[in-house]
Amino acid sequence: MADSYKVDGMTCGGCARSVTNAITKAAPSAAVTVDLANGTVTVDGGVPADTVKRAVEAAGFDFRGAA
Amino acid sequence: MADSYKVDGMTCGGCARSVTNAITKAAPSAAVTVDLANGTVTVDGGVPADTVKRAVEAAGFDFRGAA
Repeated sequence: MADSYKVDGMTCGGCARSVTNAITKAAPSAAVTVDLANGTVTVDGGVPADTVKRAVEAAGFDFRGAA
Repeated sequence: MADSYKVDGMTCGGCARSVTNAITKAAPSAAVTVDLANGTVTVDGGVPADTVKRAVEAAGFDFRGAA
């Protein structure tokens, strides 16, 4: 199942990679897709929202909940 | 003492914040300065280089050693 979240502060490919890495580190089986234009992150693999939130915030971006 | 490192892949303010957060999380007392134009990160507070390396890599950027 894929869940999409609004994440503020991602402005370039480096940001996208950073968020992807942070989530993948917290949940190695997750498949992460970042949509920079819409400021959303989609996580496939049944990862708890709180795990995504902590990873996103640890990476320095703002987790805004379900997109 | 401040140590400067070359870090590849930082292209915007979001990247800079992400790298700063990752290092600060690993070493809370560190003072981190990112120079995007030169691709360098300066860490003040006597943080071991290996700690900086791990934090930078976990955040999805490429640690290239001393600048």
